[in-house]
Amino acid sequence: MKLKKLSEIAAGELIGDGNLEIRGASPIEEAGAGDLVFVLEDKNLAPALSSRAAALVAPLTAKVTGKPAILVKNPRLAMARILPLFAPKPKGKPGIHKTAVVAASAKIGKGTVIHPLVVIGENVEIGDDCVIHPSVTLYDRVKIGNRVVIHAGARIGVDGYGFVWEAGKWEKIPQLGTVMIEDDVELYANVCVSRATLGTTRIGAGTKIDSLTHIAHNCDIGRNCALTSLIGLAGSVTLKDHVSVGGMAGFAGHLTVGENAIIMAKAGVTKDIPANSVVSGFPAIDHKKELEQQAALRQLPAALKSLRAKQ
Amino acid sequence: MKLKKLSEIAAGELIGDGNLEIRGASPIEEAGAGDLVFVLEDKNLAPALSSRAAALVAPLTAKVTGKPAILVKNPRLAMARILPLFAPKPKGKPGIHKTAVVAASAKIGKGTVIHPLVVIGENVEIGDDCVIHPSVTLYDRVKIGNRVVIHAGARIGVDGYGFVWEAGKWEKIPQLGTVMIEDDVELYANVCVSRATLGTTRIGAGTKIDSLTHIAHNCDIGRNCALTSLIGLAGSVTLKDHVSVGGMAGFAGHLTVGENAIIMAKAGVTKDIPANSVVSGFPAIDHKKELEQQAALRQLPAALKSLRAKQ
Amino acid sequence: MKLKKLSEIAAGELIGDGNLEIRGASPIEEAGAGDLVFVLEDKNLAPALSSRAAALVAPLTAKVTGKPAILVKNPRLAMARILPLFAPKPKGKPGIHKTAVVAASAKIGKGTVIHPLVVIGENVEIGDDCVIHPSVTLYDRVKIGNRVVIHAGARIGVDGYGFVWEAGKWEKIPQLGTVMIEDDVELYANVCVSRATLGTTRIGAGTKIDSLTHIAHNCDIGRNCALTSLIGLAGSVTLKDHVSVGGMAGFAGHLTVGENAIIMAKAGVTKDIPANSVVSGFPAIDHKKELEQQAALRQLPAALKSLRAKQ
Repeated sequence: MKLKKLSEIAAGELIGDGNLEIRGASPIEEAGAGDLVFVLEDKNLAPALSSRAAALVAPLTAKVTGKPAILVKNPRLAMARILPLFAPKPKGKPGIHKTAVVAASAKIGKGTVIHPLVVIGENVEIGDDCVIHPSVTLYDRVKIGNRVVIHAGARIGVDGYGFVWEAGKWEKIPQLGTVMIEDDVELYANVCVSRATLGTTRIGAGTKIDSLTHIAHNCDIGRNCALTSLIGLAGSVTLKDHVSVGGMAGFAGHLTVGENAIIMAKAGVTKDIPANSVVSGFPAIDHKKELEQQAALRQLPAALKSLRAKQ
Repeated sequence: MKLKKLSEIAAGELIGDGNLEIRGASPIEEAGAGDLVFVLEDKNLAPALSSRAAALVAPLTAKVTGKPAILVKNPRLAMARILPLFAPKPKGKPGIHKTAVVAASAKIGKGTVIHPLVVIGENVEIGDDCVIHPSVTLYDRVKIGNRVVIHAGARIGVDGYGFVWEAGKWEKIPQLGTVMIEDDVELYANVCVSRATLGTTRIGAGTKIDSLTHIAHNCDIGRNCALTSLIGLAGSVTLKDHVSVGGMAGFAGHLTVGENAIIMAKAGVTKDIPANSVVSGFPAIDHKKELEQQAALRQLPAALKSLRAKQ
Repeated sequence: MKLKKLSEIAAGELIGDGNLEIRGASPIEEAGAGDLVFVLEDKNLAPALSSRAAALVAPLTAKVTGKPAILVKNPRLAMARILPLFAPKPKGKPGIHKTAVVAASAKIGKGTVIHPLVVIGENVEIGDDCVIHPSVTLYDRVKIGNRVVIHAGARIGVDGYGFVWEAGKWEKIPQLGTVMIEDDVELYANVCVSRATLGTTRIGAGTKIDSLTHIAHNCDIGRNCALTSLIGLAGSVTLKDHVSVGGMAGFAGHLTVGENAIIMAKAGVTKDIPANSVVSGFPAIDHKKELEQQAALRQLPAALKSLRAKQ
């Protein structure tokens, strides 16, 4: 792959020999002859320049000397555009493995790949160009849009956790609703999404959810949200579009988070969060206020000691 | 299904035409002709009355006008009683799928359903009327009572995490015990329960554990406990009967939580908790005290500033 | 098994009749005739002596009377050495089950056991004497060393969670790297390890990771670390050798934790942690300082009240 070609793909500014052959991409510290490396942060420029890499991708502002380079506005975006060229080609051929157990009535979307050991319940719908990785469970009546990727071990359409205390024991409320995973969603490994008690638990188009996160029954997740790993949403939480949630954050039930809000890692959200806010801590509050409280708490032992000394 | 019949099942007070045909149940905002809706909170009464629903289930105190209704003491309980009538009937027939690999010596409880891709180890016992969802693992010698439901991907009888540091490395302590899941337990998706080092990790009858929760080796969970998702119990934790635990709460090892205690979400329990207490925070303390501390902390930045101004 | 033999295996000091036949090991409270019990803490000595156990293993300092005993420096180590003798023998015989689907080109390490329903991708390497429990997923190109144990439902080589925000949606950064699980690692149930974007996510030799923990892309975990359950590491976290991490701790991306550090349960690590430190809290700080802050916070409500009274 010629550097010039990669530069065009990344819509970048080419510095040096465009005919240079690039054989692959690598981390800076492991770069060998023919490798392209990506400078995502300023501090990595010097190591990249002194590495064995053949060329680098760097921000427009980088002062590159001694190596060919592609300068771009957003190196992460360049990564997204260039790396597909170096991805290993999957060897599988279209078809149905002889050990697959497929109902005569089953229809699968065009271009969709179902990996081994996936269980697909009754009346499930799966769109086009999806990838369902191994050992996923799609319970009955779950709906999956187009271009959805579901990683290994994710469980979609698990019963909601709904019980009522009666006569000294927990009585189950039947969970008759379903789950809708809209277009372009990616769910990572071992994620759990519960079906609605009635109606639909929805994961909005373009939303990405990292491994081991739990979405409870009747949640309504907007479009293009980013939820990282080990997050827990209780029942009937609404996230509006483009909400970002850090790892291990938790949400009490029946609350709404406004558009573009950022919920920081390990936050505990206990009430509605306005659009465009940044919150952290438990209970989650405005992030700046949380930092003020943390700073004050650090001073508290000394302050109490000083108060006591005066008494 | 006639409204009168549903009213009888819910032991409710019928208002309006008992001969009304109900075709299903739905969320209030999606209700169509023929649908029954449930008013679980007062604020939902007005939307229910103005919805397209045919009839509603509401608390005894609700002022229902303009629609037939079933008034009940506990609408959630009415839900638990009425919804089974509208549940889709599973199509599966009794039998063993031709691709199932079953030992000649295997015996399965009467009425028990084992979904696809479940692995059942040696000398496992499973009682009557259980449902084991897809891709569950029951390690060797695990015991499952009657009417137990285990959702997809749960792992029961995983080795305990027991190591001893010796000569510069971790040496494994063999985990020879087992797990007992008593009657009427429900374990949700991807839950992990470790076997005891010696003896038995026990999940008491009627306890319900939501997705992605981890129960370590030698825990002893009482009857009718409610554990939601992403909870972590370290080794040898005892929960007495009817303990409720909020999501993401964690428990240090070798401690005991008394009967009817409520451990709130995200709490970190570091010592024994008396029966009937409500605790929160980390380290978990009496919930009212925790709220006092949170309120004080919110005032702390201003208080420190004011103190400094006086000096 | 004669007590004398067990004493030799544990390199212990034998008290009483070495010819005593031991039939098994059990928890103190369940001990029956012929059982050996382990006294791991002083408080368990009296119950052990008054139990029905035939003999006990206890610390060198224990005053044992009335029962034969093996006195050892480290009873947990004795447990690790003695219990293998009482472990049930697995019944399986070497071979390939007739339902296994194995590529003609596949090579498996000597002595390695692959349980049912494991999916192994292309170009995966697995060493000798490994145990891969049921329903594990090893994505393409993952490398597994020797004597590695992977429990049910673990997902190794999941894509990293890497996206860039562009033109109003999340664009995926292809994840071309891999995962290296070194010798003697044990990964528990439903653990998720993401592949590197470029390069390798590494789990160092001898490291043990408990159930439901998430290791993100490009993490570099040292040798002989101990990570318990429900821990979350964001991308590119480095743990040096012999780091211990308590349950539910979380790590922000791109930070380094020095050798022998102890990260306590539920900590939130937001910056580099020096070697040999003990940290807790969120943001994680020196554990003693965290305890001081907690103590101060407990006094805060009263202190504020008293301040106000004076004004």
